[in-house]
Amino acid sequence: MSAKDQRDDILGRARVKDDDALRAYYDELAEQETGALWTVANDIEPWEPTPKSAPTIWRSSSLRPKVLESLDLVKPEDAGRRVVFLRNPKRKDVSACCGWLFSGIQVMRPGEAASAHNHAASALRFIMEGAGAYTVVDGHRLTLNAKDFVITPNGTWHEHGVLEEGETSMWQDGLDIPLTNALEANFYAVHPDDFQNSNLPFDASPATWGAPGLLPAKETWGAFYSPLMKYSWDKTYEGLQNYARVTDGDPHDGIYMRFVNPQTGGHPMATMGASMQMLREGEHTKAHRHTGNVIYQVAKGKGYSVIGGVRYDWQEKDIFCVPAWTWHEHCNLDESDNACLFSFNDFPVMEALKFYREQAFPENGGHQEVTATA
Amino acid sequence: MSAKDQRDDILGRARVKDDDALRAYYDELAEQETGALWTVANDIEPWEPTPKSAPTIWRSSSLRPKVLESLDLVKPEDAGRRVVFLRNPKRKDVSACCGWLFSGIQVMRPGEAASAHNHAASALRFIMEGAGAYTVVDGHRLTLNAKDFVITPNGTWHEHGVLEEGETSMWQDGLDIPLTNALEANFYAVHPDDFQNSNLPFDASPATWGAPGLLPAKETWGAFYSPLMKYSWDKTYEGLQNYARVTDGDPHDGIYMRFVNPQTGGHPMATMGASMQMLREGEHTKAHRHTGNVIYQVAKGKGYSVIGGVRYDWQEKDIFCVPAWTWHEHCNLDESDNACLFSFNDFPVMEALKFYREQAFPENGGHQEVTATA
Amino acid sequence: MSAKDQRDDILGRARVKDDDALRAYYDELAEQETGALWTVANDIEPWEPTPKSAPTIWRSSSLRPKVLESLDLVKPEDAGRRVVFLRNPKRKDVSACCGWLFSGIQVMRPGEAASAHNHAASALRFIMEGAGAYTVVDGHRLTLNAKDFVITPNGTWHEHGVLEEGETSMWQDGLDIPLTNALEANFYAVHPDDFQNSNLPFDASPATWGAPGLLPAKETWGAFYSPLMKYSWDKTYEGLQNYARVTDGDPHDGIYMRFVNPQTGGHPMATMGASMQMLREGEHTKAHRHTGNVIYQVAKGKGYSVIGGVRYDWQEKDIFCVPAWTWHEHCNLDESDNACLFSFNDFPVMEALKFYREQAFPENGGHQEVTATA
Amino acid sequence: MSAKDQRDDILGRARVKDDDALRAYYDELAEQETGALWTVANDIEPWEPTPKSAPTIWRSSSLRPKVLESLDLVKPEDAGRRVVFLRNPKRKDVSACCGWLFSGIQVMRPGEAASAHNHAASALRFIMEGAGAYTVVDGHRLTLNAKDFVITPNGTWHEHGVLEEGETSMWQDGLDIPLTNALEANFYAVHPDDFQNSNLPFDASPATWGAPGLLPAKETWGAFYSPLMKYSWDKTYEGLQNYARVTDGDPHDGIYMRFVNPQTGGHPMATMGASMQMLREGEHTKAHRHTGNVIYQVAKGKGYSVIGGVRYDWQEKDIFCVPAWTWHEHCNLDESDNACLFSFNDFPVMEALKFYREQAFPENGGHQEVTATA
Repeated sequence: MSAKDQRDDILGRARVKDDDALRAYYDELAEQETGALWTVANDIEPWEPTPKSAPTIWRSSSLRPKVLESLDLVKPEDAGRRVVFLRNPKRKDVSACCGWLFSGIQVMRPGEAASAHNHAASALRFIMEGAGAYTVVDGHRLTLNAKDFVITPNGTWHEHGVLEEGETSMWQDGLDIPLTNALEANFYAVHPDDFQNSNLPFDASPATWGAPGLLPAKETWGAFYSPLMKYSWDKTYEGLQNYARVTDGDPHDGIYMRFVNPQTGGHPMATMGASMQMLREGEHTKAHRHTGNVIYQVAKGKGYSVIGGVRYDWQEKDIFCVPAWTWHEHCNLDESDNACLFSFNDFPVMEALKFYREQAFPENGGHQEVTATA
Repeated sequence: MSAKDQRDDILGRARVKDDDALRAYYDELAEQETGALWTVANDIEPWEPTPKSAPTIWRSSSLRPKVLESLDLVKPEDAGRRVVFLRNPKRKDVSACCGWLFSGIQVMRPGEAASAHNHAASALRFIMEGAGAYTVVDGHRLTLNAKDFVITPNGTWHEHGVLEEGETSMWQDGLDIPLTNALEANFYAVHPDDFQNSNLPFDASPATWGAPGLLPAKETWGAFYSPLMKYSWDKTYEGLQNYARVTDGDPHDGIYMRFVNPQTGGHPMATMGASMQMLREGEHTKAHRHTGNVIYQVAKGKGYSVIGGVRYDWQEKDIFCVPAWTWHEHCNLDESDNACLFSFNDFPVMEALKFYREQAFPENGGHQEVTATA
Repeated sequence: MSAKDQRDDILGRARVKDDDALRAYYDELAEQETGALWTVANDIEPWEPTPKSAPTIWRSSSLRPKVLESLDLVKPEDAGRRVVFLRNPKRKDVSACCGWLFSGIQVMRPGEAASAHNHAASALRFIMEGAGAYTVVDGHRLTLNAKDFVITPNGTWHEHGVLEEGETSMWQDGLDIPLTNALEANFYAVHPDDFQNSNLPFDASPATWGAPGLLPAKETWGAFYSPLMKYSWDKTYEGLQNYARVTDGDPHDGIYMRFVNPQTGGHPMATMGASMQMLREGEHTKAHRHTGNVIYQVAKGKGYSVIGGVRYDWQEKDIFCVPAWTWHEHCNLDESDNACLFSFNDFPVMEALKFYREQAFPENGGHQEVTATA
Repeated sequence: MSAKDQRDDILGRARVKDDDALRAYYDELAEQETGALWTVANDIEPWEPTPKSAPTIWRSSSLRPKVLESLDLVKPEDAGRRVVFLRNPKRKDVSACCGWLFSGIQVMRPGEAASAHNHAASALRFIMEGAGAYTVVDGHRLTLNAKDFVITPNGTWHEHGVLEEGETSMWQDGLDIPLTNALEANFYAVHPDDFQNSNLPFDASPATWGAPGLLPAKETWGAFYSPLMKYSWDKTYEGLQNYARVTDGDPHDGIYMRFVNPQTGGHPMATMGASMQMLREGEHTKAHRHTGNVIYQVAKGKGYSVIGGVRYDWQEKDIFCVPAWTWHEHCNLDESDNACLFSFNDFPVMEALKFYREQAFPENGGHQEVTATA
C-alpha cells in the first residue's frame, strides 16, 4: 500500500466523530478501568513503526579520555563494574543505547578484578584495547584480546579482571537489560564466594568448539546458548577475507557474517545477535531498513554511514546506533583498504517473535538524500 | 539467596558514594550522551522483577451493560472494531490490560460486518455469548460459539461479523499490541477489497487439523502459526474431564491444559499462549508466581483467586489479570461442580527468550495470607 | 529421463569390455578382498528401485480359522507370543511381510497373559476383534478395542493379555524386526519380574495426550516416541468424516490421515508410521508409486486395489501389502458406504534418511491396465 | 542381564516343543504364505546383534600398486568411475565394505574427467594423494588435496577429474549404496550435458561456510545436507591440536571430533557421518563397542587396533573396518608423535532411527585379550 493510502479516514481505521453522548460514555468507561478502543486505535495500531530511539554516534576521540578518567574516580568493588554507559537521547528513561539494548564502555586496570554475579539479562563484549584481561563465564576462563567478541549468557556466573602483568583494558559491553526489565524478567544474584574458582585451562571453549566444520564427537552441551563463548578477531577477519573472495556481497551490508552457536547455526544467545561486516575498498552500500535495533563499533578503517538521511562519519572505536525501521547505508572512505564494523542487535527477538521485516530503499538508486551531517 | 542478603551495600552491587568530583564527572558524561553505570545499576538490575501492572478484575455484572451500550453509540465501519478495552490502572500509557498484553470486549449485531485488515500484532478471541458470529482468517471462515477459542495470527487478514439470522454476539479479544509497539514492530494494512472473498467451507480448519492424534497425511502447512485456528469448547471441556480422570492435577493450577499447534505441539502463535484449566469441586490450589502475564476469563462456575494477597471473587464471564512475578492461587467455591478458567498469556515470549522462571510459595502450606478483598 | 534413455551403454554407465588382462586383474583383486567397481556398478546403481517384495494378500476368510487353531496348539508362555506371521513369498529369508517390515496375527484367550519383554525393534498393533484385551507399555495400561491402533516403541517394556472376563481377542502386529536385524541393532530382554507392576489408571495415555488441540500444560515427555500410545477407532473415524466434509481428498489416497505424536506432529515412532484412510462411496483413486513399503488392513467395507497391474479384491480384516516403488490404486466397491483402510509403513525411515520419492502414474488418466486378478 | 541369563529356555522366549500336530500346522500355514512366529522368534529377536561383516584390513603397501594398475586397464569414460572397491569377505552379496557401507579407491590421471551423474546414494571422499584433482557438486567446484574430506550428498550432480597440469590422484570413496539398495531407494541419472557448466570460484563452499563460529548473515541454504562440502586437512589437524590442549580425551577414541554441517551442528549428510581422531603419543585407548559400522583410513602415523580380539597393525593410507557391536580399541605405537585416523560411519542412520547403543568393555582394565594378529 502506498503512503498516500495510509490515511486514517478510510474504512478499516477508527474514524468516530466524538459527541457529548460519547464523551459521557468515555467517562463512564474510565470508572470501570476501561476505555473505547476507537479513541486510541489509530495510535496503537500505526501503519508502520516509528523508532523510539535517535540515531546517535559516540566518538572515541572524546569519549575514551572520559572513560579513562573513571579509573581514578571509582573502584570496581564499589561500582560493581566501572562502566560509562551510552544513553540514547530519547531513551534516558530506560537507560538504553538503542531500542531495548544497553551498551557501555568498561575499563579495568592491571590487578583489578570485579566480583562474580549473574542476571537474567544477557551480555556480550567487544574488546577495544589492552592486554591480560579475562572473563570467567560459568568457570570458563577466557582471555580478552583486541577485537575479540565474547558472550556471557543469561543466567551464567561471570566476572572480569586484568592480570597483574596485563595492561589497562577497555571493552564495549552490550546487554539486553532494558528488554529484560521491560519484560519484567530480570533477576540478579551475587556469587556466594564472591569469585568463581576454576581450574579449566584458559580458552578451553574456543579450543573445544571453535574448529571450522568440526565439533567434539563425544561432548554434549545442553544449554540454550553457545558453548563457543569467544570469537577471536584473527579467525573472524580471516573468515571475512575468505568469504569476500567468492561472493558479490550483500547490497546493504557488504561482506556480512554473523556469529553463531556452532551446535545449532543459530544466534549465540536467545536475545542478542552479533555480526562482523567488511566494507571493501571504497564500497558504498545501498540503503535499507528493518525492524530491530543495531549498535555498531568500528573495528577497522574509516568511513561514514547515512542514517535517516543524516551522515555520521566514523573511524576505529567509534560507536553508533541504527534504530528500528530507519533507513541506513554505509560507506568505506578508504579506497585502498577495507573497513570492518562489529555490531550487535536484537534480531533474535525479532525472529523468535516473528517480527522481523526488511525493506530496500526504493528510490534514487538505493541511496538516501543526505540532509545533514552529525 | 534469602531476601535478607539482597542488600545493595554488599560486594557486587553499586555502592559508590558521590562527591563533588563525581558529580562534576557525571555532568561531563551527560554532555556526551553518556552516564555512569553505577548511578543506575541497582535500579536497572533489580534482585527480582517488580510487576508493572496492578492485579485487576473486570466484573461482567457491571461491564456487560456498558459494552452493550456501545451498540447504539458507534458503528463498526466507523470504529474499525466496536471494542471496550480493559485498561490496567498502571498501564494506561500503553493501553495494556496486563504487562504488554491488550484485551477488550467486542460486540456486534446481526448483519454487521467489520472490514478486513491485518497487523503484525497477533490476536485471539474467547467467545462470551451470541450466535451466528464468524471470523475470516486468511480466507478460513470460522463460526464463533460460546466459549470457543479462536486465533488470528500475526500478518493474517481477518474480519468479523454476525450473520443476519444470528444474535448479538460478544467476545473477549486478546492482542499483543503493546508488545508489538514496544518492540517497534507494528504494521497495519486494510484489505484492498475491504472484505475477503472466500468459498472455503465454514470451519474447514478444525475439520482438517482438529482430530486427536491425527493429521492430514498429504497437506503441508508452512506458516509459523497453528493451522488449527478454532478450538471448540465442547472438545476442550471433554479433554479436561478425561485428563481429570487420570491425573492428580497440578498443585498450582488443577487440571491445566494448553492450546497447541497440532503440527508442532507448541503454542498456536509466536507471542501469546492460551490455556483452559479446570478446578475440581471445592479445589483450592497452592500459590506460586512466575514471569509472564496472564489474563483470565471465567468460563464456568464461581470462586475466587488470591493475587498478591488480595482476594478477588469471580463468576462466569468475569475477567481478571495476574501480573508477572505475583503470587496467586485459585479456589473453586462450588463443592458440587467444577469451575473452568480460560486464560491467555505471554509465555511464548518468556520461553523463546529464555526468561521463564517459576517459584512455589514457600510458606504457610503454600497459601498466602489474605490481606484484603477486591 | 525417459526409460528409453536408461541404457547401460551410454557415457556415465559402466561399459568396460572384459578381456584376458582384465580377467586376470579381477582375480588378483579378489585375492586382496577387493573388486573392480565397473563389474558391478550397473547392478548396484540401478536406474530406479526394483521391489524386493511381492504384492500379496492374506484373506481373513481362510487365515482367521487357521489363527484360531493355534489357541489349542501352543500356550503363550511357551510361544512367547502366539502369532501367525505373514511371510512375503520373496522375503522368506528375513521373515518379512513387505520390505523390512514384519507382520503377524496374534490371538489370546481370556485369562491368558504373555510376559513382559523389550527389544530395540518397535511394534504396533491394530485390533481385529475381541474384548477385554490389554497391553502394558512401560507401565501404561491400555485397553484394546476393535480397530484401535496402539504402539509399543523401541525399548519399552510391553506385555499383552486378556482379562478373565474378556473374550478371545485377535490383532495384527506390525514390527520393524527385519529392519532392526538388517541394521544389526536388535536387542532383546525379558522383564526381571516377568510382568510389569503398574497402578496407573487404564488408558491414562489417551486421556492425558489425546485431546484435540490441547496438551497438558505442565507435563513433560522426554522420550523420542509419542506419549499418546493408543488411538481409538471412534475418534479416528470421526476425524475422517470431519475432514471429508471439507476436503476434495488426495487423488491417490482419498481421505487420508496419519497417526501422529501430538507433542511434535511427527510419526509416533522413529521407524514406522501408520495411517487411516477413507475411500468415499464408490471412490476409485488414481495410481501412484513411492519409495517405502506399506501393509494394509481393511478396517471397513469392501473393494479392491490394483497393485503392479494385478487386482486384489478385499473385504474387512483382509491384509495386503504394496511393495516399494510399485504402482497402486484403490477402489471402494460400495456405492452407498465408505471403506476404510488402516495401514502402516516405513515412511519415517524414508523421510529421516531423505529417501522418500513419489510419482503419479502418468498415463491412461492415472489408472493402470489390470492384467490379472489375485 | 548377564549373558548366563540369555538362555532360550526361559519364560519370554519361544520354547515350543514341536510335535506331529504342530508340524502339520506349519505346513498348512505355509500354504497361506504364513508361518508360526515361535519357530523363528529366537532367531529374529536375538539377545544382541551379531555382526554381519568381518573385521578386515586393506593395506596400502599391497593395494596401492594394484589400484595404479587400473590406470592402464580401463578409461574413466568406460568404467564410469575407475574404482577398486573393498569387498568385505562376509558381504560380497551386497558389495559392501562393512555393514551397508561401500568403499573403494578411485584413481585418475591428469587431464582425465569422469562425466556427471547423480544418485540417491550419498558419497564422500578422503583424499589420499595427488594434486590438481577436483570434484564438482551441484556446480560447486572443489579442489582435492591430500587428507581433505569432501561430500557429494544424495541427489546432487557430481563429477571428478584431474587438471591437465595436475598429478595422478587417488582417494577413498565412501558410499551408502548397499543401504540405499537394501531400502529399495536407489535412483541413478546421467547429466543431460555429460558435464556440469559452472563459473563459481573454486572452493566457494569452504570460503563461505567454513569460518569458525561465523556464517554468512544473508545467505540461506535450504538443503538437508551441509553447505560446507569440503573440510581441509590443515584446519582439521589444527582443530585436533587445539582440542587436545584442553581435554583429557575420550577413553575409547582419544581426541575425537566429527565433521558437521555448520548450519545445524549435525552430520553433513543424512546417512553417513565422518570423524577425525588423534591418538596422542603412545596413547592406547580402552575398548568399547556400539551399533553402527565404521571404516577407517590411517591419515597419519602408525599403530594398531584390536578388533574382536584380533590385532591389526596399520600405517598411513591403510584402511580397516570395525563391524557393528564389535569390541575395538586403538593404539598409537609412536611415542614421539601423534597418529590420526579418518573414519566414516552409518551413525546418522543409527541415531535417526534410535538404534544407537554403546558399551564399554567391562573387564581387564578395559582392554581385550589379543587372540590373533592379522
